[in-house]
Amino acid sequence: MTLNIQEMMQDIGRRARSASRAMARASSEQKNQALLHIAKLIRQKASDIEKVNLQDVERAKANGQDAAFVDRLTMTLKTIETMALGLEQIVSLDDPIGKISAFQKQASGIEIGQMRVPLGVIGIIYESRPNVTIDAAALCLKSGNAVILRGGSEAIDSNTLLAHIIQEGLAAANLPKDAVQVVATTDRSAVGEMITMTQYIDVIVPRGGKSLIARLMAEARVPMIKHLDGICHTYIDADADIAMAIKVCDNAKTQRYAPCNAMETLLVNQAVGQKVLPTLCKIYQDKGVELRVDDLTRKTLEENGFQNLVDATEDDWQTEYLAPILSIKTVADIDEAMNHIERYGSKHTDAIITNNKAQADRFLREVDSASVMVNASTRFADGFEYGLGAEIGISNDKLHARGPVGLDGLTSMKYIVMGHGEIRT
Amino acid sequence: MTLNIQEMMQDIGRRARSASRAMARASSEQKNQALLHIAKLIRQKASDIEKVNLQDVERAKANGQDAAFVDRLTMTLKTIETMALGLEQIVSLDDPIGKISAFQKQASGIEIGQMRVPLGVIGIIYESRPNVTIDAAALCLKSGNAVILRGGSEAIDSNTLLAHIIQEGLAAANLPKDAVQVVATTDRSAVGEMITMTQYIDVIVPRGGKSLIARLMAEARVPMIKHLDGICHTYIDADADIAMAIKVCDNAKTQRYAPCNAMETLLVNQAVGQKVLPTLCKIYQDKGVELRVDDLTRKTLEENGFQNLVDATEDDWQTEYLAPILSIKTVADIDEAMNHIERYGSKHTDAIITNNKAQADRFLREVDSASVMVNASTRFADGFEYGLGAEIGISNDKLHARGPVGLDGLTSMKYIVMGHGEIRT
Repeated sequence: MTLNIQEMMQDIGRRARSASRAMARASSEQKNQALLHIAKLIRQKASDIEKVNLQDVERAKANGQDAAFVDRLTMTLKTIETMALGLEQIVSLDDPIGKISAFQKQASGIEIGQMRVPLGVIGIIYESRPNVTIDAAALCLKSGNAVILRGGSEAIDSNTLLAHIIQEGLAAANLPKDAVQVVATTDRSAVGEMITMTQYIDVIVPRGGKSLIARLMAEARVPMIKHLDGICHTYIDADADIAMAIKVCDNAKTQRYAPCNAMETLLVNQAVGQKVLPTLCKIYQDKGVELRVDDLTRKTLEENGFQNLVDATEDDWQTEYLAPILSIKTVADIDEAMNHIERYGSKHTDAIITNNKAQADRFLREVDSASVMVNASTRFADGFEYGLGAEIGISNDKLHARGPVGLDGLTSMKYIVMGHGEIRT
Repeated sequence: MTLNIQEMMQDIGRRARSASRAMARASSEQKNQALLHIAKLIRQKASDIEKVNLQDVERAKANGQDAAFVDRLTMTLKTIETMALGLEQIVSLDDPIGKISAFQKQASGIEIGQMRVPLGVIGIIYESRPNVTIDAAALCLKSGNAVILRGGSEAIDSNTLLAHIIQEGLAAANLPKDAVQVVATTDRSAVGEMITMTQYIDVIVPRGGKSLIARLMAEARVPMIKHLDGICHTYIDADADIAMAIKVCDNAKTQRYAPCNAMETLLVNQAVGQKVLPTLCKIYQDKGVELRVDDLTRKTLEENGFQNLVDATEDDWQTEYLAPILSIKTVADIDEAMNHIERYGSKHTDAIITNNKAQADRFLREVDSASVMVNASTRFADGFEYGLGAEIGISNDKLHARGPVGLDGLTSMKYIVMGHGEIRT
């Protein structure tokens, strides 16, 4: 790394740390005022944003990026309005900062409580969607944190303009501009510095594809709120409502293929294979979903006239397809299903379809995933659907925040002790 | 590292992961039965434990270890009974596992709750005190975790015997013996393997001196619950009750010198320097505490006839003495005090002495430490004093558990979703 990049990042870190103290003190009114001002500016400057974004888009096209990439990069008047609405939605959320739990008086006389406080400085490392600049910054501000944003080089012009708009909004509410800083370089070594400067950044939230996350996991010293894989399972139990199983499993796989909470592996109890697989797999094949199956599932399906089945390999059980491909395994019972999930799952989201309360309770308690569901589509694993109001990401780690992460995940609880001159004896 | 050690550690990890599933399912009764059985065995085998411990002690003496080291290593009938009592105390604590928050119904119809579950596998890396083997294992078991214990090589015989006793207790309650394993080698590369086997260990709790923690921090890939330094401050405000300030600051420094929650730096508002410093510093000097002071403090003290004052250097403000040495600075106001704590503190425990509610509130909200206190001795930062019933350690990190860590810190909350066939639209 060049010394310049290191110095630049250290300077950004110092400014963020300093600004974080003012953010921790800021009132809810001040923070909301800043967010509303940013929303107003975004609407006022919508055509400027479009124009600047077009520079990024043209460059991406000139560099030969594919249509999906360009699509993610492109901001329209509609996506710009969505950003403004998102800001207003975050204004409407409760401010978690400063909330104090009930005090508990101890034998010594001291009273112990816990106060919700910001984490301090959040680093966001993200890829092409420039709207993340607004969405992520807004969540960090509302939760009283400073934030350092490192978007993809492809969106640098859009991100830099959005950062200026945010800083203008901060200034209008008498908050420090340094509370939101965009790393204005396309030099990749800036990321390496960011994920190791533990003195200035309290947590990194990476938003991007698996290769980005894997690289950061290998090198980061700053803790991360993240997930690598979303290998989500649905297990159809012997006591499932068959019509419900078909409806939910169709939705879990095909409503959208790309999200991390889409189902990748279907586990079917052998007692209901004949009842559920033919109808469900007809739906999948009609929608163009490739089926990769174990021997028992193949047998059931071939008896019912199915063709074009692929043998599932060991790799299939541990692959997040994010595509119209589904692996299917017929299992003897809930234990085989849970063993499969333990061995191949990614601790993201797993569901059981059953009307048997005892089986549901075992699944809920024993499956070690961030979200465990009964009779619902795995696609519900999402901050908005869980009522968090917004989402900075999804964690499948076990420490700190687990599952969809909203404002609370960007805070911590510190102990506060009210004494009256007590001493320890 | 030799391949043998690596293979051994991987095998221990696999066994622990497997046992952790049975532990997660275990009932409170089963876990308590195991703990009570271990307490009974410890009392029955007290003289065996003493005898085996003597081997460790003799070896330590032969190796020329100092008296303090030998003292920490030595188990007496009294410390053995304390272990048994500690087990019974952990039995009396509420089992956190399986507790479910209130369900919140969402617009889609799904109901969202959170269930408290074990982290999975905890790794404990500790130094000479063999009682940690029992204390730490008991907390991990009660919270439904499996545990891998790596004590110091100096205590290997004591630790191995205690592990056998624990495993006998587990078996008596029909729990897997692999839920508690002691790494039975003195090869230091076992630690290197342990702190990087992220697939088998969910969190490491290091218990030991600063050099141990620093080494683990540099190399660990498994997340840790830990603190490095305890540079604790007390700020005596202009509106302090002077008698209370003297009593509390005497206690915070001199009740014991070695704990991480002992005060290392005293900050005094200049308005009360004349009232508080002479009386308080007389107490310190009478107890043999060396005073390292800034110019203003020196001036105040010399005007009152003090001698033997040392000039505080930049190093002093950032040193955890753990000894009868105190650094003292006279400050203009609460802002200078909080700036000093922000710059030099370790985010462990900091206190203000004041009768001014506004100043107390600012200090509570703005000081970014795991424990922030008003009118109490920093020595209270402790799991027992906070009513947690027990303590696996103290964290001054901000993610997950912060401050004294009890049973809850060894668990996480997963989302549980109760549906009725809902699909996402």
